[in-house]
Amino acid sequence: MSELARMSQLFVRTLREDPADAEVPSHRWLTRAGYIRRVAPGIYSWLPLGLAVLQNVERIVREEMDAIGAQEVRFPALLPREPYEATNRWTEYGDNLFRLHDRRDGDYLLGPTHEEMFTLLVKDLYSSYKDLPLSLYQIQTKYRDEARPRAGLLRGREFVMKDSYSFDVDEAGLQRSYDAHRAAYIKIFDRLGFDYVIVRATSGAMGGSASEEFLAVAENGEDTFVRSPGGYAANVEAVRFTPADPVPFDGIPAAHVEDTPDAATIETLVAVANELFPEAGYTAADTLKNVVVMLVHPDGTREPLVIGVPGDRDVDAKRLEATVEPAEVEPFTEDDFTAFPQLVRGYIGPQALGLDEEGHGVRYLVDPRVGEGTRWISGANEDGKHVFDLVCGRDFTPDGLIDVAEIRQGDPAPDGSGPMELARGIEMGHIFQLGRKYAEALGLKVLDQNGKQVTVTMGSYGIGVSRAVATIAETTCDDKGLCWPRELAPFAVQILATGKGDEILAKATEIAEALAARGIRVLLDDRKASPGVKFADSELLGMPTSVVVGRGLAHGVVELRDRRTGDKQEIPVDTAVERIVAEVTG
Amino acid sequence: MSELARMSQLFVRTLREDPADAEVPSHRWLTRAGYIRRVAPGIYSWLPLGLAVLQNVERIVREEMDAIGAQEVRFPALLPREPYEATNRWTEYGDNLFRLHDRRDGDYLLGPTHEEMFTLLVKDLYSSYKDLPLSLYQIQTKYRDEARPRAGLLRGREFVMKDSYSFDVDEAGLQRSYDAHRAAYIKIFDRLGFDYVIVRATSGAMGGSASEEFLAVAENGEDTFVRSPGGYAANVEAVRFTPADPVPFDGIPAAHVEDTPDAATIETLVAVANELFPEAGYTAADTLKNVVVMLVHPDGTREPLVIGVPGDRDVDAKRLEATVEPAEVEPFTEDDFTAFPQLVRGYIGPQALGLDEEGHGVRYLVDPRVGEGTRWISGANEDGKHVFDLVCGRDFTPDGLIDVAEIRQGDPAPDGSGPMELARGIEMGHIFQLGRKYAEALGLKVLDQNGKQVTVTMGSYGIGVSRAVATIAETTCDDKGLCWPRELAPFAVQILATGKGDEILAKATEIAEALAARGIRVLLDDRKASPGVKFADSELLGMPTSVVVGRGLAHGVVELRDRRTGDKQEIPVDTAVERIVAEVTG
Repeated sequence: MSELARMSQLFVRTLREDPADAEVPSHRWLTRAGYIRRVAPGIYSWLPLGLAVLQNVERIVREEMDAIGAQEVRFPALLPREPYEATNRWTEYGDNLFRLHDRRDGDYLLGPTHEEMFTLLVKDLYSSYKDLPLSLYQIQTKYRDEARPRAGLLRGREFVMKDSYSFDVDEAGLQRSYDAHRAAYIKIFDRLGFDYVIVRATSGAMGGSASEEFLAVAENGEDTFVRSPGGYAANVEAVRFTPADPVPFDGIPAAHVEDTPDAATIETLVAVANELFPEAGYTAADTLKNVVVMLVHPDGTREPLVIGVPGDRDVDAKRLEATVEPAEVEPFTEDDFTAFPQLVRGYIGPQALGLDEEGHGVRYLVDPRVGEGTRWISGANEDGKHVFDLVCGRDFTPDGLIDVAEIRQGDPAPDGSGPMELARGIEMGHIFQLGRKYAEALGLKVLDQNGKQVTVTMGSYGIGVSRAVATIAETTCDDKGLCWPRELAPFAVQILATGKGDEILAKATEIAEALAARGIRVLLDDRKASPGVKFADSELLGMPTSVVVGRGLAHGVVELRDRRTGDKQEIPVDTAVERIVAEVTG
Repeated sequence: MSELARMSQLFVRTLREDPADAEVPSHRWLTRAGYIRRVAPGIYSWLPLGLAVLQNVERIVREEMDAIGAQEVRFPALLPREPYEATNRWTEYGDNLFRLHDRRDGDYLLGPTHEEMFTLLVKDLYSSYKDLPLSLYQIQTKYRDEARPRAGLLRGREFVMKDSYSFDVDEAGLQRSYDAHRAAYIKIFDRLGFDYVIVRATSGAMGGSASEEFLAVAENGEDTFVRSPGGYAANVEAVRFTPADPVPFDGIPAAHVEDTPDAATIETLVAVANELFPEAGYTAADTLKNVVVMLVHPDGTREPLVIGVPGDRDVDAKRLEATVEPAEVEPFTEDDFTAFPQLVRGYIGPQALGLDEEGHGVRYLVDPRVGEGTRWISGANEDGKHVFDLVCGRDFTPDGLIDVAEIRQGDPAPDGSGPMELARGIEMGHIFQLGRKYAEALGLKVLDQNGKQVTVTMGSYGIGVSRAVATIAETTCDDKGLCWPRELAPFAVQILATGKGDEILAKATEIAEALAARGIRVLLDDRKASPGVKFADSELLGMPTSVVVGRGLAHGVVELRDRRTGDKQEIPVDTAVERIVAEVTG
């Protein structure tokens, strides 16, 4: 885009009405301000203003990736099936993958991520530890056939990502590469100019270990995260509580089964329990709720899983999904209950659960709060009966822990750093130590110093570039429109010629040209339109600074406006250019 | 890419062997020098060096498009079927289109060109003549499922194009927009720095009228073009001869049929004719060869077509294809001859051809040389017989002209500017006046000055951006490797530290850093490799200037090499940086 653009010629039309499908502010404003245009669900065209913001994001990302020595490459979006077959992702991606045939009936896909391609390329070129470390990145269009594309660019089906991968010969190298990317990401997100948090994350379907997400703090975010006053921060899916230390249970009476008619819910059970033992003062936290679900593994096998959580908490569906990936979670059906008669609906108890040494039975995993020596009321595996004083480690032994209970505002942070606050965010970046999963699957090895073949360890680092445009719009807009951080704005300054008379337009043009000559990107509103229209459009378009050349000109002043604060001040027209330069470069 | 890169860290491996599938030098060198890597037929990954060249081309194109006020947008590559259905291209593109379904079974395609999208976007935003003229462009990845992807990037299936469209209210506006684009293209191709010609072109399947191509002059080009000393230049498919003026035929005897056994070819026919009339001195040019083909129209209907050309020329298949588009040409089969008994194979004559007033019969079109009053020997529509003294306009009347005869080296140019030279070229750009085809199909109208709805007229302007990388490699390489024009080279200078000793590498590094600090892109070959390897790689990689820091350093000199000319000269090391700066910015 040229340094100086005129509204009379700029390819933009602002809309007075919200688009019918706008679910979130960023989508509404980006559409109304003429930045993007919908083509199909989750698929958008970039108009000149939107593309300028996108290119600004790309430039910042590129500069900071180059600065850590990452090298830019570009893979195709149209990819053959074979490499994705080797890692089983051709199948694992399921309906999220756009698949197609070429004219010779060959199988192709539109790349949702490029782990396989990066891995194979490095394997193709490199063979020695001397070649490493290496970091490669690309800024590229990706495709994912989302079940529910939504919120404009926030969850699209065609989108732009920066993805990079590091390649190291050992863990220490991976840690250095990870740290370098983390530092670069902080620089990038600082430059993008909005509120974000870095949280612990799960690595999802990608495999790997250490993993952090960069989240934009946003009410409309799809992600929930927690943070504590002491600095703990994590995506709820990644919160991991320390298992409870064993407690002594010598004084606890033997488990005893009681009749508990009409007590198939926790609430009714607590009421019945307190009737039976009025002095106990039972609460929901004293009951052990056993939730049964069906896991469907990628190979299609189905496995029942029972999860034991304190009765005052539910299982969090997203935490569960993230934990059992790549298996999928399905509800346990009537037929399933019939097939597994040891599971008595409403009265499931741990005594009948768990796998034997040969792996037979129903897998039983418990919340970390269900530690050795804890005492519970739970189902007796018989209709209308519960068991009391059931002690973990004495009366039942779980197959392991699973940390998927819901997290509540005020829960203590796992690291003891204080009560956790729950908030919503939009994932903008994800860095993680991928490890050797892809290198192993595709045979990426190098010779180490001793001449031995070792499998390379990889890091994976992504930024949603097109999503960043929407996220930043989402978190910076107000009730008048967009409000861009300075480094992202399509133009640094918008100049409004308001009022009649050739002199006003001439002076506005003169200032605009002087600014453009100084390398400042200027949008001049030279339209034959009312001041009201120009003011409204200026606020809608969201350049950080605007200058009104109008009636004040007769008194030798123009008005300087700050989009974010709303501040307005008159400045002398004679020194206006210097003043504006100082404002936008300051 | 950073200003200063080190070969020891650059993600590149040079290959000593040609890739097995390399058909042309550009493909061979780009692969061997580590610029690109094949992923699938016609689908390539860009390595850091290749991507740097691609981005240089993009930058030049973008700067010159911006300079004429064209505004950049970006459409999706994944597109819904509907708009392409409206213009019938969903069908017309045939097997060349990559088609796919989304998870809801919706029809999508990967965009081969975006006429529909540009047209609809302007329709969406604009409604008045005051909004025009407008020029929009994008630099974007496109897809075409080529039957025979070949020659590396020259004919790929995923490729990068700059495509722009102009929108005007009338022909005069279209002409101005066309002229502006033409001037911008000349600047772009001049900056790209290689040998090109601008030739008249057909507009192919796109419709439209005035049309020119920018061709790189290249032996391996798929296009054939002609040029004359007087400045005529055209793609052979676009050469149009002026129809011959009528000549008097009063003195020509009546047509007479003769027995001509065994004369089913032009050569045997001329021999037989000269036996019959020894004084006539017949040549092949006196015979009228009637070539029959089957046209298959987009709607599937089949129509026979007979083409009459002087017997000393063949029909040029590519000229014929370009002329009858969007119909396709198929050979006339045995069965076809059976179905049309008036066509006697080897003896087809114009007397039996031509459409009657109701459109019945076989369409007969003739070369422009077959003018009224010209006299011919042709088939008599009877086995073993030919007719002599057959006069066009007296004995037969063609249905029209068709200019598809082969063009030969030395043929006079249609405009009288001298004999034509034939040469091969690679199409790098195409500009043409598209007119109202898409605006009409999709209803793009604006109100004119009188408040009347008028259909917008469009220009279409393309540049093959990824193809440009290959084309320029193709036309500038030599037998040692690549040889980039200065504005395209990934690095302006390559510095080779040759010979042992820390001092040499230290000085080479010092020079490299000094150049980088001056904003010059430098590649430093700091590898532990022999001078021979470094020299060979340097020539293979093709930076325009290289500097050898080696043995001469002891005498206070380094060597400056010019990749294109092969010139080498020693320069004092003390003033080397200044000298190199002058060399690469000069």
